[in-house]
Amino acid sequence: MSTYTESIEKLIESLSRLPGIGRRSAERIINYILGASSDEVRVLAESIQKVKENVHFCRICNNLSEQEVCKVCQDSRRHKEVVCVVEKPSDVIAIEKAGNFTGVYHVLMGSISPLEGKGPQDLKIDGLLSRIKENSVKEVIIATDADTEGETTALYLQHILKPLGVKVTRIGMGIPMGSNLEYADATTLARSLEARREI
Amino acid sequence: MSTYTESIEKLIESLSRLPGIGRRSAERIINYILGASSDEVRVLAESIQKVKENVHFCRICNNLSEQEVCKVCQDSRRHKEVVCVVEKPSDVIAIEKAGNFTGVYHVLMGSISPLEGKGPQDLKIDGLLSRIKENSVKEVIIATDADTEGETTALYLQHILKPLGVKVTRIGMGIPMGSNLEYADATTLARSLEARREI
Repeated sequence: MSTYTESIEKLIESLSRLPGIGRRSAERIINYILGASSDEVRVLAESIQKVKENVHFCRICNNLSEQEVCKVCQDSRRHKEVVCVVEKPSDVIAIEKAGNFTGVYHVLMGSISPLEGKGPQDLKIDGLLSRIKENSVKEVIIATDADTEGETTALYLQHILKPLGVKVTRIGMGIPMGSNLEYADATTLARSLEARREI
Repeated sequence: MSTYTESIEKLIESLSRLPGIGRRSAERIINYILGASSDEVRVLAESIQKVKENVHFCRICNNLSEQEVCKVCQDSRRHKEVVCVVEKPSDVIAIEKAGNFTGVYHVLMGSISPLEGKGPQDLKIDGLLSRIKENSVKEVIIATDADTEGETTALYLQHILKPLGVKVTRIGMGIPMGSNLEYADATTLARSLEARREI
């Protein structure tokens, strides 16, 4: 039985590992690649390499960055005394799109999920505590997802942050329970930031 | 408004051009890439480049190949006097998987589609005619798709091949194996009745 050529089978294997891509979609992508200009394909391959080489996590807040410190943390106009805690870098993008937040972020890089065996020790919480202690942080806005894991994480953070004397708030529940923060529309996110309550 | 870093935005743009991938799936793929090993990402990027550089179309039949002539055309055990005409390289793979075809192929690289402005002049038909004239081809099996475009292409080929004195056949149309007769559409049923054989 003759199959695709060696190069194609190898690319199908690589592409199939990506989320949401199976063998058939890999074949369609390869068809596209074979028909595309050499330039376009080179740009695609190089862009993949560049993202892997250039993009790191911000030393301060774990947001995605091509420098040691991300653009938000570098920006002197952002209010460093208000820290918004989110689960993942794409949540930062979502809140930035809402456009009404002028503070800085802290990305936990996950959430507490007993089912997946993920506890507080798997999150970037130490960095958050240092930032609160070392800088004059006045308010921590907990903007974890509104699902079970996000709520559990919010509860945990509330317990360890309160004793530090910092104001701890949770984003308003303009966000429907059970849905992911990054999928919320900009207006809902803006509303939920305005409607935050002390907990 | 701060968005993703420059490298990430560029990769989102490149990925979004691929068939079946939108901005959200591009973001998910990038998340995966950021978490994957550098080796895996390098292999992916290199595989994309290699497919574009190494894979070409067979000089004889237009099938995908890393040499000038594809594996099927190179194989001395394949019967060169029977040519199966298909629309695209992935059709060759599908028929090879069936495992009972011992002839060779000719890939048209498309089908006649007036709606898309594609006529016979856009297909690789000249090469097929040369093969029939120059080699001792006894039978041409037309295995284009069973949709409007494929049927139109089959009809067109029938008209230009018949005068050459070669036997022209069309693959059998009917009820797919393993499926229920009651769910088959009327056209398929009509064709399967026409194609009945004595047993």
